[in-house]
Amino acid sequence: MLPRQQCDKKSKVLVFGAGNFGSCLADHLGDSSHIVYMWSRSENLVKHFNQYHRNPEVLQDHQFAESITAVGPEFPPSELVQEMDVLLFAIPTEGVRETLTALKPTLDETKLPLFIFVNKGIEIKTRALTLEIIADTCGPDIAKVATFISGPSFAKEIVKRQPTSVSVVSLSPSHAEQASQLFHQPWFRCYTGDDPIGVELAGALKNVYAIAAGMAAGLGFENNTRAMLITRGLAEMTRIGTAYGASPLTFLTLAGVGDLFLTCSSSTSRNYTVGHRLGQGEKLDHIIKTLGSVAEGVTTAKGLKAIVDELGVAAPIASGVYDVLYEGRAVEERANELLSLPPMSELDLSVEGGKPAKRLMAKLGLDG
Amino acid sequence: MLPRQQCDKKSKVLVFGAGNFGSCLADHLGDSSHIVYMWSRSENLVKHFNQYHRNPEVLQDHQFAESITAVGPEFPPSELVQEMDVLLFAIPTEGVRETLTALKPTLDETKLPLFIFVNKGIEIKTRALTLEIIADTCGPDIAKVATFISGPSFAKEIVKRQPTSVSVVSLSPSHAEQASQLFHQPWFRCYTGDDPIGVELAGALKNVYAIAAGMAAGLGFENNTRAMLITRGLAEMTRIGTAYGASPLTFLTLAGVGDLFLTCSSSTSRNYTVGHRLGQGEKLDHIIKTLGSVAEGVTTAKGLKAIVDELGVAAPIASGVYDVLYEGRAVEERANELLSLPPMSELDLSVEGGKPAKRLMAKLGLDG
Repeated sequence: MLPRQQCDKKSKVLVFGAGNFGSCLADHLGDSSHIVYMWSRSENLVKHFNQYHRNPEVLQDHQFAESITAVGPEFPPSELVQEMDVLLFAIPTEGVRETLTALKPTLDETKLPLFIFVNKGIEIKTRALTLEIIADTCGPDIAKVATFISGPSFAKEIVKRQPTSVSVVSLSPSHAEQASQLFHQPWFRCYTGDDPIGVELAGALKNVYAIAAGMAAGLGFENNTRAMLITRGLAEMTRIGTAYGASPLTFLTLAGVGDLFLTCSSSTSRNYTVGHRLGQGEKLDHIIKTLGSVAEGVTTAKGLKAIVDELGVAAPIASGVYDVLYEGRAVEERANELLSLPPMSELDLSVEGGKPAKRLMAKLGLDG
Repeated sequence: MLPRQQCDKKSKVLVFGAGNFGSCLADHLGDSSHIVYMWSRSENLVKHFNQYHRNPEVLQDHQFAESITAVGPEFPPSELVQEMDVLLFAIPTEGVRETLTALKPTLDETKLPLFIFVNKGIEIKTRALTLEIIADTCGPDIAKVATFISGPSFAKEIVKRQPTSVSVVSLSPSHAEQASQLFHQPWFRCYTGDDPIGVELAGALKNVYAIAAGMAAGLGFENNTRAMLITRGLAEMTRIGTAYGASPLTFLTLAGVGDLFLTCSSSTSRNYTVGHRLGQGEKLDHIIKTLGSVAEGVTTAKGLKAIVDELGVAAPIASGVYDVLYEGRAVEERANELLSLPPMSELDLSVEGGKPAKRLMAKLGLDG
């Protein structure tokens, strides 16, 4: 077994959210000897976790580190928040605005902790990235140093110390570095970067391409087609990201191609499953009803359509997914349209544009 | 079923090689109504193929198009060669120099056909790319217009018209365009580019990373680790390619990340199998003995080591594979060394260098 990397100091970390990913990251940090609090809205979860060190809702087979304390269901009090070195947000993007709004009054502005976000997705109503939600709720100064962790990382493998690696990015390199120091272990390798907009876009968009990969499999297409979809999907994500104002190279990272690859080759992921069942001829309504909730890519496909239209960028795969989900088009017919597009030059990155990112940077006072 | 794209004219194509990939491409072109000759050194194969339209050695279940004629076992005569619009080379890289040397005297220099290459790999003895072998044997004028096809494309899926896509590249855009016109169908999509050096490097190097992916699986590592290896392998390939003088963007293409992904996720590929068995503790000698022949990545790892040392570029994964294959290091111990490397910045593309490509361009008279 590999030796654990020694940390210079034990950090106090409060994790918001006790779902799959929040739990496994709490466990990882507890396993690295940090002092971890994990907040949940579920009274039952909090009690059960503190008694048995097991999460009754996710990763049920896993015995969690003793150094983790569940807190809740009330929102964490100011005294706890102000004691923390790190706040880690592992809640769905739709809940970030509300959580940060509740958090803001509890902060000691003179001694801010490190803010780390691991949610993926675009806020449905506003089409905002999390970076913008942070600026809106906590102000640009916190957004400028907020750090994002993203990459190919199934929770059930992380709790088994399966070697995993992630992108750790922030507009502030020193904050990305701090987050990397906190998380890095031989079995959880951290690679730093400075393009949170690209990382956030990649994390949201990949779910749409996972639906496409599922559709292809549902139609009976095999490995060549899946590799084509991943590659052309990556080219499309890169084109959209570049037009948005992200760096094209970000799509080459763990948060980009790494996570895209994992999501598109996992037949157990929700997005892939939705696509697969659509490809086999099931109706979306029925799929959503039987899945219990909407897969993230389904809503992202709608937001993405609006973004792509606004940017005027070619996104044939995402448009195809949108047409099947929202325009009632048959998967096979729509796939045939894609395949019938004329041959083209492979690399056609737009270097124009970048307006949305410029707008967001201006909001953070970083437009010069 | 999708309608076939009509070709402006029927081309006469001579395919050198009747292995897996040569056969499936001959079939694809025959299926697109071109007139196809397929050369094999095996008298039995030629006879059997012309009688039954089946290849007795590969893709045995497939009924080939009637428009394909097998020729051989003698080297194709001048009259046949000079009648051709296209020469397609689907032979191992180690045989290209000999084949082109034999071919040269049969060519009509005033009316050259289109030269297309689909082999992958680096010539063992010289470490030359195919582009250089072409220049050495047929002269720079033919190398300058030679076209290369590469991408995620299992032969057994191509003969079933499973949607497949490939990169089609040449230093001469008009020749890449001609090759694309010849091959393109809705189920065989062609994407053109102009970086044969990058495409050749990607095609060769990916096999080394497939060995690494196999090793990780052999050690019992799962999806997170595979995604990490593919992503960090891609970063490494891109770094090596850039230092060599290729375009970093080429590694984002079907011939780059697309083929890397396919090769690293196919548990049936020879390179992956070698890695997997090494990861499970078998010795290389024994594996090679029972596999029947050496997997390409095993020899490429050696050539790559020399290239990487010459370029002075960091390639920890390729070095790890080399150490296991040639220095007798244990897989688990060497993997632990990799995992124990310190955290780092994710994107560290060297933009320096490019000497090997410059040398090759000078050989083609393209150095100004």
